[in-house]
Amino acid sequence: MRLDGFLQILVPKDKKFFPLFEKAASNLVEISKVLNQTVNEASLEKRKELIKQIEHLEHTGDNISHLIFHELSSTFITPFDREDIHTLAAAIDDVVDNIHGSAKRMELYKVHTITTPMVKLAELILKGAIELNVAIAVLKDMKNIDLIKEACVRINSIENHADDIFDNAIAHLFENEKDAVQIIKHKEILATLETATDKCEDAANVLQSIIVKTT
Amino acid sequence: MRLDGFLQILVPKDKKFFPLFEKAASNLVEISKVLNQTVNEASLEKRKELIKQIEHLEHTGDNISHLIFHELSSTFITPFDREDIHTLAAAIDDVVDNIHGSAKRMELYKVHTITTPMVKLAELILKGAIELNVAIAVLKDMKNIDLIKEACVRINSIENHADDIFDNAIAHLFENEKDAVQIIKHKEILATLETATDKCEDAANVLQSIIVKTT
Amino acid sequence: MRLDGFLQILVPKDKKFFPLFEKAASNLVEISKVLNQTVNEASLEKRKELIKQIEHLEHTGDNISHLIFHELSSTFITPFDREDIHTLAAAIDDVVDNIHGSAKRMELYKVHTITTPMVKLAELILKGAIELNVAIAVLKDMKNIDLIKEACVRINSIENHADDIFDNAIAHLFENEKDAVQIIKHKEILATLETATDKCEDAANVLQSIIVKTT
Repeated sequence: MRLDGFLQILVPKDKKFFPLFEKAASNLVEISKVLNQTVNEASLEKRKELIKQIEHLEHTGDNISHLIFHELSSTFITPFDREDIHTLAAAIDDVVDNIHGSAKRMELYKVHTITTPMVKLAELILKGAIELNVAIAVLKDMKNIDLIKEACVRINSIENHADDIFDNAIAHLFENEKDAVQIIKHKEILATLETATDKCEDAANVLQSIIVKTT
Repeated sequence: MRLDGFLQILVPKDKKFFPLFEKAASNLVEISKVLNQTVNEASLEKRKELIKQIEHLEHTGDNISHLIFHELSSTFITPFDREDIHTLAAAIDDVVDNIHGSAKRMELYKVHTITTPMVKLAELILKGAIELNVAIAVLKDMKNIDLIKEACVRINSIENHADDIFDNAIAHLFENEKDAVQIIKHKEILATLETATDKCEDAANVLQSIIVKTT
Repeated sequence: MRLDGFLQILVPKDKKFFPLFEKAASNLVEISKVLNQTVNEASLEKRKELIKQIEHLEHTGDNISHLIFHELSSTFITPFDREDIHTLAAAIDDVVDNIHGSAKRMELYKVHTITTPMVKLAELILKGAIELNVAIAVLKDMKNIDLIKEACVRINSIENHADDIFDNAIAHLFENEKDAVQIIKHKEILATLETATDKCEDAANVLQSIIVKTT
């Protein structure tokens, strides 16, 4: 146990953070679901509406992060390390931002043909979001730490899987797409989707660090 | 108020940091002004000289950051959170680096035609730099906290504006520029300019975090 | 001396970190050597085998980082600032990741012609790795602090050198390579190699921060 952990025993813990993290995690699941609808939607018009929903959910996520950061600045003693609270909130926010960024680029770059690796990456993002949501729900009472550990292991393997899909998609792009402009557009959308799973893993790393310190 | 905030009341605060931050902020305003001169200069030769000035000011900024980091390592009690001092200095340094990086790339990539979004982004960077400079000037005595808050709100809106300009510039580039190499060059210069406003917002976020903790 | 430095005097210091950092640094030297073999290997088949070795050494590096992070979470008092331990381990890990990333991309993008700037950057990465290895070896007893300082100065100049090579390589690429797809591929491999020297400098910055606090 660390020195600041010892000090924390002496004072009542602040429970305001848990509902905020639960909101952030469920908003992440929601935006991931809409991303999956988007990449599976054939109608360009309906896709446009879904991307507007994604933009709206990104703003919701922003507001939740700001609430967490504000709470962090005004709270004397936090339920776990301040730095971990900050990094966890920032990581969830980064997943959301990259989901929004990938959808925005599809529209902005007029990439109308959604490819298989894009669909697969969107699926992996949703899987990661669901795992994060479960892990954060049990963080509150720390009774089912094994559930957190297992979710983190699965998030790591999701990120490895996303890495492979991304690498192969880029290699395939270089080999089959002759138009350099299309390569630039697709590469950037794929990279943004893959980064979303990286940020998911960052969030899982904070969760692992929190449970190691607490137990 | 946080625990380390409580400890800080007990000891005299170190005031060495404020003049260093003021130097960093005024150097940032200076380099932003030269960037604006550069993107509005028609003569390639004069532009080259201005880019040399930018390079010189980037070195000046580097030296100021190193002084702040060195002061931070050797000072017992700091006027506000060590982490905030470090992040603020690093964020200002990042704005300067991205200004330098964008100017350097214009020369290196032989991008001689400066486009409207580049000029607009340079203007927004200067606006952000001026706001940061004002906010940092009042940080010293914490008497006009509202001035800091208002500057941070404006920096946030500057960054949103820069985001929109960047997104539209990239969409326009993909639609109108047929030469992929030109797209690569312009996209990178625009991205570096836009990142400068992101880093400006990072600095504003630290300022907001400092005033929340102190008041 | 800082407040937490003062507290650390009162308790026995934990020496478990030094052998782990030494392992991380020697693994970094090893992977840098294999990278140099790779970029100097004419046979595509042998190059492929060397890239497999790089992948293996990247996994080894990952395991060492995880051990350091785990140790950090479970250790009451650390030999130097927790944050510095974390940042140092993460920086070494980032150098290794970028070495692996550059080699992986050579294979994945089928970039079979290794250019002079790639070879030069690989040499600079190895030089930086050797300097880091020396500096970390003397960190343990803090008797030869000048050796650490000198290594850090040399790492800074290695990074500046890598910057110049990268900038000139990109300018050369834009001027001489007409195929945009080749530009995209080469630019990304060069950027990944250059980032490895940036991360080397990040590690050196932590070392400098550690010795300033300790002396």
